Amino acid sequence: MHTQQRSEETRAQLLEAAEACFSESGYDGAGVSEICRRAGVSKGAFYHHFSTKQAIFLELLSRWLEGLDTQIARARQNAPDVLAALVTIAGMVQQVFEAGGGRLPIFLAFWMQAARDPAAWSVTVGHYRHYHALFAAMIADGIAEGSIAPTIQADAAAQAIVSLGAGLILQGLLDPQGADWAHVVGDSIHIVLEGLRPHPV
Amino acid sequence: MHTQQRSEETRAQLLEAAEACFSESGYDGAGVSEICRRAGVSKGAFYHHFSTKQAIFLELLSRWLEGLDTQIARARQNAPDVLAALVTIAGMVQQVFEAGGGRLPIFLAFWMQAARDPAAWSVTVGHYRHYHALFAAMIADGIAEGSIAPTIQADAAAQAIVSLGAGLILQGLLDPQGADWAHVVGDSIHIVLEGLRPHPV
Repeated sequence: MHTQQRSEETRAQLLEAAEACFSESGYDGAGVSEICRRAGVSKGAFYHHFSTKQAIFLELLSRWLEGLDTQIARARQNAPDVLAALVTIAGMVQQVFEAGGGRLPIFLAFWMQAARDPAAWSVTVGHYRHYHALFAAMIADGIAEGSIAPTIQADAAAQAIVSLGAGLILQGLLDPQGADWAHVVGDSIHIVLEGLRPHPV
Repeated sequence: MHTQQRSEETRAQLLEAAEACFSESGYDGAGVSEICRRAGVSKGAFYHHFSTKQAIFLELLSRWLEGLDTQIARARQNAPDVLAALVTIAGMVQQVFEAGGGRLPIFLAFWMQAARDPAAWSVTVGHYRHYHALFAAMIADGIAEGSIAPTIQADAAAQAIVSLGAGLILQGLLDPQGADWAHVVGDSIHIVLEGLRPHPV
């Protein structure tokens, strides 16, 4: 195996182990030793890839959000119109819930850190703003093509979508047994889409 | 002044000081000493009213949510129909934002504690479930009276409303400068209400 290939594999193992540790123990509870033990990697190797626990945390956050980005762009390309693309994206959110609550607690760790760590804040908020801009542009396209009502304010609608997504994740996290979340996500987004659709007067 | 009256005043001062401390420093950062100093009250008086820091935190959470309850019930009574009541409630949420971000950080402290402290979890989730049931009943009434579309599932719509509210608060908290939140709240809820309203086919 080439050295570079092995190095990338180690990096991937560390990121996977870190995600599991942050999900289980939160940001403060997770330690570099535990991440290394779980990844089967030495501390030397950890510090070769990441300068601090915060660095691996921020990398995890960025990667996760970039993955979502790619999926959203693909949904937009493959759908006949904006409203249809939003339906596909709603389905992606549903899958996150259906895949099981196991990966959800990482969100709470992201939010907690954003509230008190300026570096985590700027990554998190940068991405929120990015999603907001992305949805606002999509909705403006939808209004132009006629799949979304002309009375809708693209900016506010985008904010509603991002907020609903964040709120559903927060609630699903706090009360996993309180509802059939995958079902609720589908129905909630259906209501918002119905609110965006043009209606005959 | 009667002893009982003074005792109630002390309790109120402690609760007000605790809210300010939790908002500024989070749950872990806020201490009983700091709360007492801010309230101008002795530690003896604190422990006369509350057994622990957790106890005053939970009391604060319950009071806050009960206050919201009363306001929601009043909005329902004074509105001609359910859709109009939901518009009034949306206005209340807007006011929370307009009153300034100052009191918002307490929410993040509530959520953080709910994620790791079973007592805080059960109070928080109990109230979420309560709001969910309250909105689900309102929406079922709205469907019966015709102000809400018969195709709406009351349970899912209630969950969408609670999630949107939680998500807006979360986003407003994390990125107070990112949007005109009071305006976004109004527009977001307008979209959801438009999705709930009966539309001619």
